[in-house]
Amino acid sequence: MEIYWISGSPYAWRALLALEVKGAPYVSRLLDFSKGDTKTPEFLALAPRGKVPVLKDGDHVQTESLAIIAYLDRKFPAPPLLGRTAEETGRIWRAISESVSYLEPAGRRIATRVFFGDTSEPADQIGKAVEEARAELRGMEDALARRRWLAGDQLSAADIAVYPFVELLLRAAGKDAAQPLDLRLLPLAKTYPAIAAWRERIMALPGYERTFPPHWRPAGAAAAR
Amino acid sequence: MEIYWISGSPYAWRALLALEVKGAPYVSRLLDFSKGDTKTPEFLALAPRGKVPVLKDGDHVQTESLAIIAYLDRKFPAPPLLGRTAEETGRIWRAISESVSYLEPAGRRIATRVFFGDTSEPADQIGKAVEEARAELRGMEDALARRRWLAGDQLSAADIAVYPFVELLLRAAGKDAAQPLDLRLLPLAKTYPAIAAWRERIMALPGYERTFPPHWRPAGAAAAR
Repeated sequence: MEIYWISGSPYAWRALLALEVKGAPYVSRLLDFSKGDTKTPEFLALAPRGKVPVLKDGDHVQTESLAIIAYLDRKFPAPPLLGRTAEETGRIWRAISESVSYLEPAGRRIATRVFFGDTSEPADQIGKAVEEARAELRGMEDALARRRWLAGDQLSAADIAVYPFVELLLRAAGKDAAQPLDLRLLPLAKTYPAIAAWRERIMALPGYERTFPPHWRPAGAAAAR
Repeated sequence: MEIYWISGSPYAWRALLALEVKGAPYVSRLLDFSKGDTKTPEFLALAPRGKVPVLKDGDHVQTESLAIIAYLDRKFPAPPLLGRTAEETGRIWRAISESVSYLEPAGRRIATRVFFGDTSEPADQIGKAVEEARAELRGMEDALARRRWLAGDQLSAADIAVYPFVELLLRAAGKDAAQPLDLRLLPLAKTYPAIAAWRERIMALPGYERTFPPHWRPAGAAAAR
């Protein structure tokens, strides 16, 4: 299997984490957005929307990060990431859907503002995104104070889907441009101790290091995408 | 099982369709948004976000429409709605994810403008939503010209997830307030013949009639929600 990805894309990060958790063998194809790697005819033949991640498994080409997780979970059943019972499956997809509908839109708007200096959105709109992100993090904190993982006592696709967006928010929160937004996220261990402990558990997963965005490594040396 | 829903909610419609396709027995709990039914302490105890659909199955309370479909698919395996192989599962979740990311946001913005007369969005933004909806419908038309259902030759969760948003757009397109938007959707059989044929197949599903929004029935008698 080959995985096409871009450093810092939260969607691509999900796919890499799922591959590592499954212990699935893969070839890494790291693309450079700024060099137009996602706009070549070869890449667009795989992914007409020009987006990462893309998983190529023989003749099967899989786009869309959540669909990649679902594909991998069928192909490599252990450990199960989408539940062993109807109830588990329902709880996991509920957490994923809530992230897609609430945390992610807010996170994307905050990241766009902080990393790209995009101030085209009215102040009340970005303020609303900050409020929404805070409400979702508060809900996660409450959930993770009661259980080890987002959807139960086992790591699941919910953790894998949500985690990269938490990292994106943390990275944004550390930038000067984030100060006017008043995210109140740092230091995480003080603001959201249960999320901080959960984050440590994710970072301790085998293979985690291979999923970390390469251009995030040298502290402050490169701008986030 | 009890399903809590609101007439005209595309999310609730998904859950009803999944219940009917599975032939699962259920008790219908039709709520009235305008009477505050989704804000009662009883309902908020089930669904803290105050949103439909909610499926109550004994002690298990399931929110989020896609999670309800995933739950039902585990509980009632026939007919399979989320694939029998990894490849099918991947194709189905890809189609669902693309709908969530592209068709739905555009559809919601168009519906908000048409049904609620909300003109707070700049003209170029609503124009962009119309363009996006058209591009997604064109992609669906191409796919459905090659196969009977969105993700293959069997009805799947992709059809169930996408269909209510197509109906929402069709209903919007028929309103006077939609004329300035130039949706170019009607008559569907002419503009998107493969989508029109697919829509007929959905409407012919057993139990379909029970899922149709009650307040949409008397043509033009009530505004869409």
